[in-house]
Amino acid sequence: MITAAVAGASGYAGAEIVRLLLAHPDVEVGALTASGNAGARFGDLAPHLQPVADTVLQPTSAEALAGHDVVFLALPHGYSAAIAEQLPPEVTVIDCGADFRLDDEQDWTDYYDTPFAGTWPYGLPELVRAGGEKHRADLVGAGRISVPGCYPTAISLALAPGLAAGVIEPQDIVVVAASGSSGAGRSTKPHLIGAEVMGAMSPYGVGGGHRHTPEIERNFTRAAGRPASVSFTPTLAPMPRGILATTTARAADGVDAAGVRAVWEQAYADEPFVHLLPEGRWPHTGSVVGSNLVHVQVTLDERSGRVVAVAAEDNLTKGTAGAAVQSMNLALGIPETTGLPMTGVAP
Amino acid sequence: MITAAVAGASGYAGAEIVRLLLAHPDVEVGALTASGNAGARFGDLAPHLQPVADTVLQPTSAEALAGHDVVFLALPHGYSAAIAEQLPPEVTVIDCGADFRLDDEQDWTDYYDTPFAGTWPYGLPELVRAGGEKHRADLVGAGRISVPGCYPTAISLALAPGLAAGVIEPQDIVVVAASGSSGAGRSTKPHLIGAEVMGAMSPYGVGGGHRHTPEIERNFTRAAGRPASVSFTPTLAPMPRGILATTTARAADGVDAAGVRAVWEQAYADEPFVHLLPEGRWPHTGSVVGSNLVHVQVTLDERSGRVVAVAAEDNLTKGTAGAAVQSMNLALGIPETTGLPMTGVAP
Amino acid sequence: MITAAVAGASGYAGAEIVRLLLAHPDVEVGALTASGNAGARFGDLAPHLQPVADTVLQPTSAEALAGHDVVFLALPHGYSAAIAEQLPPEVTVIDCGADFRLDDEQDWTDYYDTPFAGTWPYGLPELVRAGGEKHRADLVGAGRISVPGCYPTAISLALAPGLAAGVIEPQDIVVVAASGSSGAGRSTKPHLIGAEVMGAMSPYGVGGGHRHTPEIERNFTRAAGRPASVSFTPTLAPMPRGILATTTARAADGVDAAGVRAVWEQAYADEPFVHLLPEGRWPHTGSVVGSNLVHVQVTLDERSGRVVAVAAEDNLTKGTAGAAVQSMNLALGIPETTGLPMTGVAP
Amino acid sequence: MITAAVAGASGYAGAEIVRLLLAHPDVEVGALTASGNAGARFGDLAPHLQPVADTVLQPTSAEALAGHDVVFLALPHGYSAAIAEQLPPEVTVIDCGADFRLDDEQDWTDYYDTPFAGTWPYGLPELVRAGGEKHRADLVGAGRISVPGCYPTAISLALAPGLAAGVIEPQDIVVVAASGSSGAGRSTKPHLIGAEVMGAMSPYGVGGGHRHTPEIERNFTRAAGRPASVSFTPTLAPMPRGILATTTARAADGVDAAGVRAVWEQAYADEPFVHLLPEGRWPHTGSVVGSNLVHVQVTLDERSGRVVAVAAEDNLTKGTAGAAVQSMNLALGIPETTGLPMTGVAP
Repeated sequence: MITAAVAGASGYAGAEIVRLLLAHPDVEVGALTASGNAGARFGDLAPHLQPVADTVLQPTSAEALAGHDVVFLALPHGYSAAIAEQLPPEVTVIDCGADFRLDDEQDWTDYYDTPFAGTWPYGLPELVRAGGEKHRADLVGAGRISVPGCYPTAISLALAPGLAAGVIEPQDIVVVAASGSSGAGRSTKPHLIGAEVMGAMSPYGVGGGHRHTPEIERNFTRAAGRPASVSFTPTLAPMPRGILATTTARAADGVDAAGVRAVWEQAYADEPFVHLLPEGRWPHTGSVVGSNLVHVQVTLDERSGRVVAVAAEDNLTKGTAGAAVQSMNLALGIPETTGLPMTGVAP
Repeated sequence: MITAAVAGASGYAGAEIVRLLLAHPDVEVGALTASGNAGARFGDLAPHLQPVADTVLQPTSAEALAGHDVVFLALPHGYSAAIAEQLPPEVTVIDCGADFRLDDEQDWTDYYDTPFAGTWPYGLPELVRAGGEKHRADLVGAGRISVPGCYPTAISLALAPGLAAGVIEPQDIVVVAASGSSGAGRSTKPHLIGAEVMGAMSPYGVGGGHRHTPEIERNFTRAAGRPASVSFTPTLAPMPRGILATTTARAADGVDAAGVRAVWEQAYADEPFVHLLPEGRWPHTGSVVGSNLVHVQVTLDERSGRVVAVAAEDNLTKGTAGAAVQSMNLALGIPETTGLPMTGVAP
Repeated sequence: MITAAVAGASGYAGAEIVRLLLAHPDVEVGALTASGNAGARFGDLAPHLQPVADTVLQPTSAEALAGHDVVFLALPHGYSAAIAEQLPPEVTVIDCGADFRLDDEQDWTDYYDTPFAGTWPYGLPELVRAGGEKHRADLVGAGRISVPGCYPTAISLALAPGLAAGVIEPQDIVVVAASGSSGAGRSTKPHLIGAEVMGAMSPYGVGGGHRHTPEIERNFTRAAGRPASVSFTPTLAPMPRGILATTTARAADGVDAAGVRAVWEQAYADEPFVHLLPEGRWPHTGSVVGSNLVHVQVTLDERSGRVVAVAAEDNLTKGTAGAAVQSMNLALGIPETTGLPMTGVAP
Repeated sequence: MITAAVAGASGYAGAEIVRLLLAHPDVEVGALTASGNAGARFGDLAPHLQPVADTVLQPTSAEALAGHDVVFLALPHGYSAAIAEQLPPEVTVIDCGADFRLDDEQDWTDYYDTPFAGTWPYGLPELVRAGGEKHRADLVGAGRISVPGCYPTAISLALAPGLAAGVIEPQDIVVVAASGSSGAGRSTKPHLIGAEVMGAMSPYGVGGGHRHTPEIERNFTRAAGRPASVSFTPTLAPMPRGILATTTARAADGVDAAGVRAVWEQAYADEPFVHLLPEGRWPHTGSVVGSNLVHVQVTLDERSGRVVAVAAEDNLTKGTAGAAVQSMNLALGIPETTGLPMTGVAP
């Protein structure tokens, strides 16, 4: 059995990692740590995780985390590097925060207020690069992995096949995505209380201000093999979980609908977690809640000359914790789908 | 007192017209008609409209509607022309359906299955045309008015100022909008039942398939004074009311953020129902629920070179019934804001 | 014109009072005050109230509030008495907090941590006492009025007619009520954030612990003319507004269904805001959202020997702010329904 | 491997059975059948069940179902008996409908319009009878099992311990429960469409009219060993899944709070799926969504003399499909918890 610790277990991402690990046949859950919630009974903060309800949260520290085979970090940005440095190299460290996602220091500095920590292999196995290779190869045997942001996962998987195949243009991509409010974490900000969120939608970080923007552009640039530009508008939707990403890019000259579909079909034909839906069916976030799946659909809008691709995921599962466990499986040589939910909880 | 009849009063749009008329100081509500629900006590179908709960719905017919000063039609497309022809010219007829919205017969034929009925003055007073004139002028004294679609209202008001002023390009506009499920009407389709809608989002009519697409393009073309093209993706959001429209267009050469804002400020400075929010504040559909207001914000994303404008409205109020009553006010020479709610019901 | 100030205007109750006053033909809105939010632009906190968006919130003080004809207090408990003492007797003061609701000092001490402040006339005009008289009489010309709690309004109106008429027993009443999350106010507690509230229900204050319990028992005791006892369980429902109160009491000997209905019919036949629905129709909170209405239905369950009465209200409107404005109307001799919404915003 | 067929797989209950069976290590999913949806690709109706998305639904018939070790029936009432009779006795048949739940023919006739079909062992293993024995014993090796109604599961588990121990009175029990809208099934009734359900609550079947009433009374009578009577009011809540049952019964003479708690503690100490929460923690339906768990809490309200017990479950999992699979495990000698989710999907 592999032993795993989770730092930041009382947050939404951390608790979701625990949920998945409890169902993983090869993993034993070890230390669960927190900062402000250290000392609390875990069941008082995560009553949905009955099997570990009586576990007491330890303060987050390298001491508490060391001694496990795998450590998952689900911390605010800026904290992971210091912890990771204190963990021996034989411990597999999987970071769900932003700290090691970007590879351009300027991008980091433009969006974050802490020092640039570096770059780790990117935990999005299904993401294609220019030339056709996927990121999966980087993860096999990796000792340090950076889990993608929740928005970039859905958005990148939606459009990357077309960029890699050259059927869409990497410049002037437009993305509008809706996220459930768990994406904002468990913080108690005034605009996130139930009465404000229910029954209403609103955008935020408009005009390139969202921190996931450079990660999205980087992924698209890698897929296209030339510079991509994106207008990205995230919106807050009245649901607990789920991301619906609507992405559009200009069709390359001479492309037709069948050709577009063929590109996406080929890209995801063998992927266990990314499904191109049958023609005419569009993704519905409710269908992937609780699962590690991404549902994708694509079409060519001949009127406007744009390809529209839509992806749905659960921001906490495939968007965070599922990607973390999937990455762990690849890192440790466990079959990639082990322990990961293949069905959503719907309706 | 003006007497008003409402055809299709048991649908969401029709009932919302009744709600507004009950609060209008110059209007007396007369006949309420329906097709399948004819003969029913109105309160059994619209218990929120207590003052007319005991009114019995009459079958929709020209006879039932004639004899009122104003007739509101809230019918499925294809029915309005036949009714309107039977009403004498001195009756003001305001159609909330699609029948008279388009002015290009080919556009109609591309999207609808009934004969093209013609074009009536367009009930969106605040919409600017190239040259700066607004549609308001067309409505003063009009005897026949076509109320815009709910999506086109929010979307057109979001971007038209920039098109008319030339600070954005009319080609390759991209719009993604989220609508509450009342936008789909009161029909009992499997994908609209509560368990499917709650907690989930999904797109529909992707790739130019939504019937509001040609209306949006027509409005943008009128605003720009040259052909516009739009990629429009509507999505269904888990809320009863509200539309959040995220619209983006390429910035014209040499435009800066202050210049963009100045254009929108000038366009809506004197509009009672369209408000450009203070800088840094973004629209929230919850803030306009039940009101006739549209909240708008705009920014220039220098990274991507696109202007992003977002508008929030209540699809049933300003998006349908409020526009109808506002149009009636203009048609009959009543002050434009009379009887229309200036505040939302929030949270 | 009557001038009115609102203390605590940035909370949900206070903002709802402002919403109603803006639609009141005889009232001019004056000072809006706050504590932590003093100095803020009101529109940044209540963007749904466009007409006063540019008003700056003043710090709550007797100085800011004096000089108006009416002062509405929407403050946490324990603050109203000190403010009210500093306001001259000719100022009508309407308190939406708990401070003056109870008339038994022991009840107050059992549930609150501040000194007992006394008792003001109770702003629930439609509530019947033993003997048949309603509380309306206490409010005409009153200079100080205490607005009922949101739960007690719906719950008391549901059962009081039967208690006053002697067709149900006042002992062993059982009430379970569901409230939208705005009932918890605008505070940012961890269990009230959107992701926790949406898609879930939970009880709180179970076992007699909710502060509205003694107010409910007092109202039932007044209605019955002899001691009442209540088991009250409130629950938090995933909606922004609305209370659905399910109340049951043992039927008195010899009572039949027709007799029960006749009692409620008679009690509310002439009430503009409390409607007994037609037989077979049950209240739906959505139908009264935004309105000052209470929808009530009652039946005799012959199997269990209990009368079940259900009431629906909007907790912020009739449950708080509407009652406040209705009380103001009675206090100042304005027709009781003036300025109060008679229709809900549905769906 | 055990082979299992599901009749009525395209309904919510049937699809949930499929979801659980796909995660069951000892079961292979065989025929999936439907009536109106026969011939459809299952993935078009249940896109959340990706692994069987390409399965084609067969028409429901004994022929399609025979040849499996276990047959789950998720059919409207009145259909199960005819199917079951045609299945050989060695096939384990588990009925999720109402047909075999009641043992009193008069109760059946009072609430249903089809002939009384008989009584099968009752699939609620944790339910205690007078004397202390639980229903589990009836299920071991059973060839025919009737799964409880979703409401009776939560409600019976909430109060039965106190009835069996004699600390509460079986007469004059009062229950108010809230259910997510999936409890109404997948039917497209006007009051179940999203715009009606979201943001609102309403009761139904008030006054003893709900079909689960006699089942609840029967369970309570069995637990108490003497006749029980119940006032039961179900309400529809704006959430897709979940039941919150608030149950109250008069405390027996001389009972104190510690004694009450001890009874429930003892009843559920060894139950894997029914958890009495720590003192002061109350059930939250969100915590059990997708799981086979029931969370229970109980208290003595000394003011009113009533014990209040609250239970939360997922109506589709423990309330239907989970109970069916748990019953199958017991019937076939598989460890009871095999394949059943022990964690909820929260938030």
